[in-house]
Amino acid sequence: MSEHPSLSVPPEDEFFRSKWVEAPNGAEFHEPAVLPDGFRAGGVACGIQGHGATDLGAVVCDSEELDSAILLTANAAAAAPIRVCRENLRHGAIRAAIVNSGNANAATGDQGIRDALAMREGLANELGIDPDSVAVAETGVIGVPLEMETVLAGIPALAADLEGEAGRLGAGRFSEAIMTTDKWPKRVSLTVDGITLSAQAKGAGMIEPGFATMLCFIQTDAVVPEPEAALRQAVEGSFERITVDGQMSTNDTVMLQSSGTSGRQLPAGLLDAVLLQLALEIVADGEGASRIGRIEVSGAADRQEAELVARKIANSPLVKTALLGRDPNWGRIAQAAGQALAGQDIGELGPEVIEAGDIAGGGREAELALTLDRGEARAHVFFSDLTHEYIVINAEYTT
Amino acid sequence: MSEHPSLSVPPEDEFFRSKWVEAPNGAEFHEPAVLPDGFRAGGVACGIQGHGATDLGAVVCDSEELDSAILLTANAAAAAPIRVCRENLRHGAIRAAIVNSGNANAATGDQGIRDALAMREGLANELGIDPDSVAVAETGVIGVPLEMETVLAGIPALAADLEGEAGRLGAGRFSEAIMTTDKWPKRVSLTVDGITLSAQAKGAGMIEPGFATMLCFIQTDAVVPEPEAALRQAVEGSFERITVDGQMSTNDTVMLQSSGTSGRQLPAGLLDAVLLQLALEIVADGEGASRIGRIEVSGAADRQEAELVARKIANSPLVKTALLGRDPNWGRIAQAAGQALAGQDIGELGPEVIEAGDIAGGGREAELALTLDRGEARAHVFFSDLTHEYIVINAEYTT
Repeated sequence: MSEHPSLSVPPEDEFFRSKWVEAPNGAEFHEPAVLPDGFRAGGVACGIQGHGATDLGAVVCDSEELDSAILLTANAAAAAPIRVCRENLRHGAIRAAIVNSGNANAATGDQGIRDALAMREGLANELGIDPDSVAVAETGVIGVPLEMETVLAGIPALAADLEGEAGRLGAGRFSEAIMTTDKWPKRVSLTVDGITLSAQAKGAGMIEPGFATMLCFIQTDAVVPEPEAALRQAVEGSFERITVDGQMSTNDTVMLQSSGTSGRQLPAGLLDAVLLQLALEIVADGEGASRIGRIEVSGAADRQEAELVARKIANSPLVKTALLGRDPNWGRIAQAAGQALAGQDIGELGPEVIEAGDIAGGGREAELALTLDRGEARAHVFFSDLTHEYIVINAEYTT
Repeated sequence: MSEHPSLSVPPEDEFFRSKWVEAPNGAEFHEPAVLPDGFRAGGVACGIQGHGATDLGAVVCDSEELDSAILLTANAAAAAPIRVCRENLRHGAIRAAIVNSGNANAATGDQGIRDALAMREGLANELGIDPDSVAVAETGVIGVPLEMETVLAGIPALAADLEGEAGRLGAGRFSEAIMTTDKWPKRVSLTVDGITLSAQAKGAGMIEPGFATMLCFIQTDAVVPEPEAALRQAVEGSFERITVDGQMSTNDTVMLQSSGTSGRQLPAGLLDAVLLQLALEIVADGEGASRIGRIEVSGAADRQEAELVARKIANSPLVKTALLGRDPNWGRIAQAAGQALAGQDIGELGPEVIEAGDIAGGGREAELALTLDRGEARAHVFFSDLTHEYIVINAEYTT
């Protein structure tokens, strides 16, 4: 079997490395990562993952003018931390988040709920804040109860890590604390137009033999008038536009906090660009991925139809293996589109309406398009190719 | 990487080799295959595939009391032969079918329609029958016009092959003529309760670098009072219950012809058992498959919900790789079910409602189950595992 090199880790000064992202003009990148004014973060090795991995982290906003928003997975079998955030969290006033990696606390029943509540209470007590202002997020294996003694013992050390200069520069350790089998950390810290924004994401599809998870935390000192609307718009254009294997996680969480201390508005498009680049990093790090495809479906009857067709193409293992094999096989795109609209008649779709040449000729980022003749609506989806490494990861490393 | 042996070709005397099929009592199997009274079949190498492969076949019923039914793919981008069969065929009086392998005649535009019509006219003229009583089915690469000179030149040879003793024993050659990259022919010829039934199927998912196709032809001398209802019921329990890669073909065709010359009714359950075994052969021969899973979802609110959840599980690459890796990872089943019902809340699904032990402990045929707590409806789906060979087949053999 031939070797398919994985996408490489980007140099730190090229965060906006995708051709599909409109990078903001004049941004200054910080390395090591700094947090915006009013924020602290940290991470410690508490022993959930073992072998010394940083696996417990927190991010805190101390600003009075705190604003926030959080988006959670729609999976009907959601994990305990998601349920706790859905039901017990003040979404507009999230001061802090506590996150562990190595255990998703999913399918753990009532005990899981109690453990998630205890985690956030532990941090809230250390910080002297209301537990309902602390989000909890977890990622890793499922169906295994958290070792709560280990976790609770780690919280004082975590609180200490948030103090002083360490806490102001702790974005890197927090970023490490949320990783499971990600090949590289997905984060950014930049200043542009007088505001600073930092973000940390993790996710690589389902690399963990149990569940993997997509997590993302964003901090800014900008003023964000409607954080939930801003976050929802940015997520719709980024994390909701990607697929690795079509599998929705039980633990997905995206959270935005703004301290407003810069007194300046968040520049238009910045959040969208940052989240899109982070989303593309997740696709690039997705379970053996070697290339990223972007399929755009236009001429659909409505947005829902465009989305349905684009997703069917992006999740087709035939299209994904064609992307790997650099086979500009437009027939597989036609077949998937025809299946998406099964029972209707969209005629035969040929190369006059399908652009697939980038599969063979394009680089790491291949652009595909299908033009239907049913209306004006369009939608696009980013997806990874399907490689031998996906099977090695998911079949040969058993729990 | 470890080797995953493919399922082996069954010995001819063990047609009903799946534990999931209720084999009819007292059936006598014919080898070489014979056709029921009133039928002829044949196959020749006309040169579509090249290298001497049998690639043009036909089956004909000469009985006056002919009855028939045909079911065609619902793919919205259906191929030319499907369109011809939809629009120009007398579904209750199909005397003959002409089939080629090597070219699916899909996405070939108006020329494709003309070619499909010319194919059936060619056979109709040779046989002296109405073209509207001849079905046409095609399978192979897509987007390439048929070489009609080659095909038309082969039709007289095919007609000659249908004559006399050769035609009465031609089921084997017909079965060969419809194969593309199938590893073994999928066919049966048996007598039970005084009636004879033969069937020929092909399909292995999308092994062909263009489209592959699921085709099945059934002949019997039994009386079948409502052939379309009987065929639809048998297909619902067989070909509509399988998935290899979740990809619906543009060319799927299943056709039943009965001559009625035995004067006896088709035994109850026989058609269902034959089609289910043939469907399972297609899964077993599916793109590198080494094992077959059967997921049963019960306790669903309605049949549609049960079906939705079962298909989401059966098509999950995580479940399929777990089946390969013998990893009884019930969390992947829970995750897929939760995704199928995204936006609702079905609670956390744990091992108390998920049976996945057969993934590790079972043999070639593994039985999985999920019990929901929402109603009384149930549905099941058969599926193949996802192996390295799938990727080799679909990525590394380019067009």
